[in-house]
Amino acid sequence: MEIWLIEGPNLNLVGVREPEHYGSSTLDAVWDDWRTNWSSRGVEVHRFQSNHEGDLIDALHRVGFTSDAIVLNPGGYTHTSVALRDAVAAIRSPVIEVHLTHIHSREDFRSVSLVSAVCRGGISGFGLDGYRLAIEGCIALMAKG
Amino acid sequence: MEIWLIEGPNLNLVGVREPEHYGSSTLDAVWDDWRTNWSSRGVEVHRFQSNHEGDLIDALHRVGFTSDAIVLNPGGYTHTSVALRDAVAAIRSPVIEVHLTHIHSREDFRSVSLVSAVCRGGISGFGLDGYRLAIEGCIALMAKG
Amino acid sequence: MEIWLIEGPNLNLVGVREPEHYGSSTLDAVWDDWRTNWSSRGVEVHRFQSNHEGDLIDALHRVGFTSDAIVLNPGGYTHTSVALRDAVAAIRSPVIEVHLTHIHSREDFRSVSLVSAVCRGGISGFGLDGYRLAIEGCIALMAKG
Amino acid sequence: MEIWLIEGPNLNLVGVREPEHYGSSTLDAVWDDWRTNWSSRGVEVHRFQSNHEGDLIDALHRVGFTSDAIVLNPGGYTHTSVALRDAVAAIRSPVIEVHLTHIHSREDFRSVSLVSAVCRGGISGFGLDGYRLAIEGCIALMAKG
Amino acid sequence: MEIWLIEGPNLNLVGVREPEHYGSSTLDAVWDDWRTNWSSRGVEVHRFQSNHEGDLIDALHRVGFTSDAIVLNPGGYTHTSVALRDAVAAIRSPVIEVHLTHIHSREDFRSVSLVSAVCRGGISGFGLDGYRLAIEGCIALMAKG
Amino acid sequence: MEIWLIEGPNLNLVGVREPEHYGSSTLDAVWDDWRTNWSSRGVEVHRFQSNHEGDLIDALHRVGFTSDAIVLNPGGYTHTSVALRDAVAAIRSPVIEVHLTHIHSREDFRSVSLVSAVCRGGISGFGLDGYRLAIEGCIALMAKG
Amino acid sequence: MEIWLIEGPNLNLVGVREPEHYGSSTLDAVWDDWRTNWSSRGVEVHRFQSNHEGDLIDALHRVGFTSDAIVLNPGGYTHTSVALRDAVAAIRSPVIEVHLTHIHSREDFRSVSLVSAVCRGGISGFGLDGYRLAIEGCIALMAKG
Amino acid sequence: MEIWLIEGPNLNLVGVREPEHYGSSTLDAVWDDWRTNWSSRGVEVHRFQSNHEGDLIDALHRVGFTSDAIVLNPGGYTHTSVALRDAVAAIRSPVIEVHLTHIHSREDFRSVSLVSAVCRGGISGFGLDGYRLAIEGCIALMAKG
Amino acid sequence: MEIWLIEGPNLNLVGVREPEHYGSSTLDAVWDDWRTNWSSRGVEVHRFQSNHEGDLIDALHRVGFTSDAIVLNPGGYTHTSVALRDAVAAIRSPVIEVHLTHIHSREDFRSVSLVSAVCRGGISGFGLDGYRLAIEGCIALMAKG
Amino acid sequence: MEIWLIEGPNLNLVGVREPEHYGSSTLDAVWDDWRTNWSSRGVEVHRFQSNHEGDLIDALHRVGFTSDAIVLNPGGYTHTSVALRDAVAAIRSPVIEVHLTHIHSREDFRSVSLVSAVCRGGISGFGLDGYRLAIEGCIALMAKG
Amino acid sequence: MEIWLIEGPNLNLVGVREPEHYGSSTLDAVWDDWRTNWSSRGVEVHRFQSNHEGDLIDALHRVGFTSDAIVLNPGGYTHTSVALRDAVAAIRSPVIEVHLTHIHSREDFRSVSLVSAVCRGGISGFGLDGYRLAIEGCIALMAKG
Amino acid sequence: MEIWLIEGPNLNLVGVREPEHYGSSTLDAVWDDWRTNWSSRGVEVHRFQSNHEGDLIDALHRVGFTSDAIVLNPGGYTHTSVALRDAVAAIRSPVIEVHLTHIHSREDFRSVSLVSAVCRGGISGFGLDGYRLAIEGCIALMAKG
Repeated sequence: MEIWLIEGPNLNLVGVREPEHYGSSTLDAVWDDWRTNWSSRGVEVHRFQSNHEGDLIDALHRVGFTSDAIVLNPGGYTHTSVALRDAVAAIRSPVIEVHLTHIHSREDFRSVSLVSAVCRGGISGFGLDGYRLAIEGCIALMAKG
Repeated sequence: MEIWLIEGPNLNLVGVREPEHYGSSTLDAVWDDWRTNWSSRGVEVHRFQSNHEGDLIDALHRVGFTSDAIVLNPGGYTHTSVALRDAVAAIRSPVIEVHLTHIHSREDFRSVSLVSAVCRGGISGFGLDGYRLAIEGCIALMAKG
Repeated sequence: MEIWLIEGPNLNLVGVREPEHYGSSTLDAVWDDWRTNWSSRGVEVHRFQSNHEGDLIDALHRVGFTSDAIVLNPGGYTHTSVALRDAVAAIRSPVIEVHLTHIHSREDFRSVSLVSAVCRGGISGFGLDGYRLAIEGCIALMAKG
Repeated sequence: MEIWLIEGPNLNLVGVREPEHYGSSTLDAVWDDWRTNWSSRGVEVHRFQSNHEGDLIDALHRVGFTSDAIVLNPGGYTHTSVALRDAVAAIRSPVIEVHLTHIHSREDFRSVSLVSAVCRGGISGFGLDGYRLAIEGCIALMAKG
Repeated sequence: MEIWLIEGPNLNLVGVREPEHYGSSTLDAVWDDWRTNWSSRGVEVHRFQSNHEGDLIDALHRVGFTSDAIVLNPGGYTHTSVALRDAVAAIRSPVIEVHLTHIHSREDFRSVSLVSAVCRGGISGFGLDGYRLAIEGCIALMAKG
Repeated sequence: MEIWLIEGPNLNLVGVREPEHYGSSTLDAVWDDWRTNWSSRGVEVHRFQSNHEGDLIDALHRVGFTSDAIVLNPGGYTHTSVALRDAVAAIRSPVIEVHLTHIHSREDFRSVSLVSAVCRGGISGFGLDGYRLAIEGCIALMAKG
Repeated sequence: MEIWLIEGPNLNLVGVREPEHYGSSTLDAVWDDWRTNWSSRGVEVHRFQSNHEGDLIDALHRVGFTSDAIVLNPGGYTHTSVALRDAVAAIRSPVIEVHLTHIHSREDFRSVSLVSAVCRGGISGFGLDGYRLAIEGCIALMAKG
Repeated sequence: MEIWLIEGPNLNLVGVREPEHYGSSTLDAVWDDWRTNWSSRGVEVHRFQSNHEGDLIDALHRVGFTSDAIVLNPGGYTHTSVALRDAVAAIRSPVIEVHLTHIHSREDFRSVSLVSAVCRGGISGFGLDGYRLAIEGCIALMAKG
Repeated sequence: MEIWLIEGPNLNLVGVREPEHYGSSTLDAVWDDWRTNWSSRGVEVHRFQSNHEGDLIDALHRVGFTSDAIVLNPGGYTHTSVALRDAVAAIRSPVIEVHLTHIHSREDFRSVSLVSAVCRGGISGFGLDGYRLAIEGCIALMAKG
Repeated sequence: MEIWLIEGPNLNLVGVREPEHYGSSTLDAVWDDWRTNWSSRGVEVHRFQSNHEGDLIDALHRVGFTSDAIVLNPGGYTHTSVALRDAVAAIRSPVIEVHLTHIHSREDFRSVSLVSAVCRGGISGFGLDGYRLAIEGCIALMAKG
Repeated sequence: MEIWLIEGPNLNLVGVREPEHYGSSTLDAVWDDWRTNWSSRGVEVHRFQSNHEGDLIDALHRVGFTSDAIVLNPGGYTHTSVALRDAVAAIRSPVIEVHLTHIHSREDFRSVSLVSAVCRGGISGFGLDGYRLAIEGCIALMAKG
Repeated sequence: MEIWLIEGPNLNLVGVREPEHYGSSTLDAVWDDWRTNWSSRGVEVHRFQSNHEGDLIDALHRVGFTSDAIVLNPGGYTHTSVALRDAVAAIRSPVIEVHLTHIHSREDFRSVSLVSAVCRGGISGFGLDGYRLAIEGCIALMAKG
């Protein structure tokens, strides 16, 4: 079973950037443990990050017809990218949208997600832990068939 | 450790109501297993459902100063109730908002949640499984302190 | 054949409340005659009124899977209640929405009905007589199958 | 007693046009029976249809000072014609607005009726039967004086 | 010198229609006197009224390349007709827009005029006298060249 | 002379809830003194609080035809309840709307009050003291006749 | 008979300012001729100009209870001044609103007039001649009583 | 094979009207050549123009069940006519919407087309040549079946 | 203790202006009595009225750093003046906003107050008596410290 | 003569992606035949596709000063990219906007094109055939000079 | 060479007012040094401040035809004054708009400037230093001719 | 001291592109002189331009923790990029936003800047000279500490 975690712009700075919103932990600090655990259960999880909208679209095209699920944090493109939305709609793998913060309790322009309508589900406000919950949710979804 | 699951209007009909949106499973079918598991880990989870906005507010007042976390599915009141929002803001327990469907891919009026801004996090689109993920998320949050 | 007339908030005051809008007749004054007539044609019509949104939802759940049709005057909840809309959508009986006044010729906020989209039909502006026309319409609908 | 049924654009195609919305029955199939019944009760009902906004205004001017009531289905002009609204306001006969479908459950632009504000009442969602109910409602209104 | 007064829908009813808005005088009562006066000063003024949008467009096409000025009361089409606006823009004669009432102090939808942007000037709120002022204004405009 | 103070949702928590907005005093701490003073001047003041929209409507119906004035703090229902507005419009006693905080300096959705349009007057931003000022205002209004 | 012409901000610059919009004539060039003509018919016309909103309000208060009519060009305050609108509503003399250009064919923000709703009539697009037409219109209105 | 070109209001003036937008060529100058060419390929193309909304609807009804395709330039009715939209939706022939200018680069109100949603395709900005391209497109569509 | 009552445009006409909204009493009729009463309790209350926005700002600057509280009725500037809002924000004395009528039950444009967000509290709908209540409220506020 | 076809994001997936919207044909299947035909008429047509907004801008800069025309399908960037619009406005070659589907009959956010206003023309709804029609249109435009 | 610095309402309080936004420095503290420097380079810079909109318009009229440039901080009138905008458009001197704070990062109503559209340039967010930069920019602009 | 000038899409074309908006000078023509001058004062200024949103974000990440200030012209991304805004917010160096033209006097969609809210200041309308003024402003800001 194969799952991809795809992260969008500025998420390479988590741990450094605005710690009052995003915390001071980094994904690197927990990733290996998580990955080992999933691997032992037969689930291979890969990750990819880019600040380029086009790179994210290319990545979705590349893995979106063969992987079992995609966990996507589109970052700032969440609110403005019809192209990303179209990419999610164009592929076959189910996509779960994750945000580290609870976007609905921040600026108004963050409360509209163009991507949501074509996702299967969403999780927000649990920080980096949201990635873990989303992947567990994907595994459960796939277990049900 | 004590967590409450509070469900709003029409959620008593899940399994019967619009199965194309909500599926044909019921919460009763899985609840005992889940509860036993949590209980064995020292987490007592209670549930409450009502179609009455006032009952939901009363319940939040009743358990919102002593329980460790609340998982709230406000149903149709999500989009219209400032009173419920004020209740969530008035209490001390952190609240996680859960929706069975991915509300952002349905009618426009469902994409605005008055309650979100005062919640700690949110999960949507995983069906009844979303309750389980939310409670696991709460346990993790509390473990971190 | 069984039909329910369900009335929402403030409709208990018709005859007393704002007579320039709602007239000074009461439903009690005509109900027995109407009911006897329908009964003689094999149609049992019951009525229920409440000022509580939750009571109306409970009532729809209670009779909405067994009665042949429901005539609903949601009163002030017409314009604000997603929960009531969800209840109408969740049940099986067809629902006809009735308003005593012609809501489109009053304040702007009254011209949006959240409930309409899930109703089968609507009648407005005929005063209490609108209930009678709606029930006749239901009988005709059922006669057609 | 004299009542007019006035139908606007595209209603000449009912029975042929979008049958999933408008059904496959035609008004001709039921009109003679209805008319005979009303005639026997002393009510003469005439009908007029045109696709031309100006023709509808001319017709309202022509019969709107002498007939006892008018049942008007403005079709697509419902949502765009201030001129038709002004014509309804300019005449003396009470006007009942009828729509075959329940316009509030269709496209957004159909939920605004410019004509409603100057009508006495409205009926929607009962198909061609709505005309019959409207005329019965007019007869009842006139019986009350 | 030739000027046309073109009146739109429902203006044939002035004197009869909603007298609280439009007064009880008719244009016929003053027209001959006005016309004789203008004629004696070398200005021929003609008038045309129709309830049909297409007739008004045809009339503008017919006289809009040869007459010296047009006084246009578009009635209810003022607020909804792009086609009429295009007709005014397409012709060569300058057009003055006149309304009997002061449209800005009535319903909201009457405060938007699609036609205004392509007119040379406008007069409102002087009742039928507005036609006379507009024609005097046209004569003065032409006198200046 | 009889006046009612009716409080809506979450106002039972004043003194505990969000003290930066609502202060840490409670109504109980001052009520007896206030009531004794009014009573000595011949004014009986009663109070009622509920989190249930329907209870508030029932209460307005119950006392709204016999009491001399009503001081109403609709809490979160201020901004969303047409049903409460209709109840205020339906009764005979004049109603004064009071908010503890100055609602216009908070979130946007709090600046629209559906209830205001049918109230006689309003006071906001004086905390619990606003109730006292409102009742003094009612007494003065009644003294004038 | 006494009429006042009151002009608002920047109108002292007409003839100098943006000649493509306002022309290069000045009011001074024609005023004496006009005034003599009106005076000979028993109508005294005075004028006042200020760039100060408060001065315009003071002027309306000063002459608005004794003059027979006021011709007002509120200039840029047309679109923004509720205070000026209230002053027009507060006085007794009828007010005619005049604009030199046809404001509806310019920027969007110029198409909303806060003052219009409390004026008796309006004229726009005739340049300085609009003042003359407005005063003639006032004389005619007063002749009718 | 039969195709109709139906043109709406003011399009009879192309070549005369606003040449900076619409050019100075006329359809008559090219039509016979085009028609001969199509005829030689077995495609009969007819044209109809009217300034009357009702005439356009009548025409669509008349040819819309038998012709193979319709090329429609609704002119100013594009933006305002629900009735025309309903006519397009009611018929069976596929409809291609053509505009001589690129409507999206003109006034705001021209950027909304009520008709587009029920058309099969659209072409704009190629002047009269757009009709030719549209008809070629229809022929290709039909060739594919 | 020193309090200022500052009134904005058109409030010099209260008692004369639109008596159906503002009553026929004048502030002069009650002011001396009120002032004597407050003076006897050690509170000096001064008043100032102007129709000039700039005068009101100057006045707020003049007394806004030394007086104990300001009661401000900004009249028509309430809804349009950012400059007045900035003045209120710039000074140190707390400001209470008073309106004679209940502005929320009048025209839409009156329901937005730019000034409210920087005021401490507000009172509306009690006529001139609102000034008295506001000053009593200020005295109570100051008594609490 | 040189023409470029530039395609934006996700258009590399046509034939695979959402076939109910975009069909199952690919551009590769027809391109060589088309290109040969154009080449034989002296028109060289090149194509370029990228999912990267910046690549599309770079491409427009590269060919936009020397090619005779550009056919642009901006895909999802149509609705969100001011940068792309600026690039189209910055270059000299005329640009024709093409969409495979009729964007006006899909989601609301697809009906606004930021790019349209700076294009010369547009074609939509003809699938891949739209590219062919657009290029034929360009050839005709250039033939006219 | 002559340049004017014109400041609007509340700017006389800079240094005292809301120091978290506007700092605690005053213009007086730096003005003489700046002015001496400019004077030595042949540039005379004058300043004027008023809280009165009319005074600002009068000042623009007075110096706007003879000075070489104007630096304008319209303060709170920025967002509401069409009259000030018209004054800027009416004069001949180029106008640079300066704001002490970066207005786009504050309240929503501050992000719309009615004056900007008729200014030559703008500077914001540099505090009082913005005046100096603007005047240097004007000198550079004039040096270019 | 180190400052970066970062330019977004289409700014590589300045001097060629739309000269009526952007002039015909190029940055290259003045840059060396400017840079030498700053260098002699101990300020090293570097520049970077890209049409790719992702490149700009990468650049901000790269220099945004070590340079003393950044002057950013986001070009068309100004109005649409939340990702760029997040990048500005994520870094430590203060950012000054510069636009060559006065964006507030152009199309509506250009008047909203998503980036402004997280910038320290802004300059617009001075053409390429705006970069020089911005850098001088940064030097002054840093001199103050």
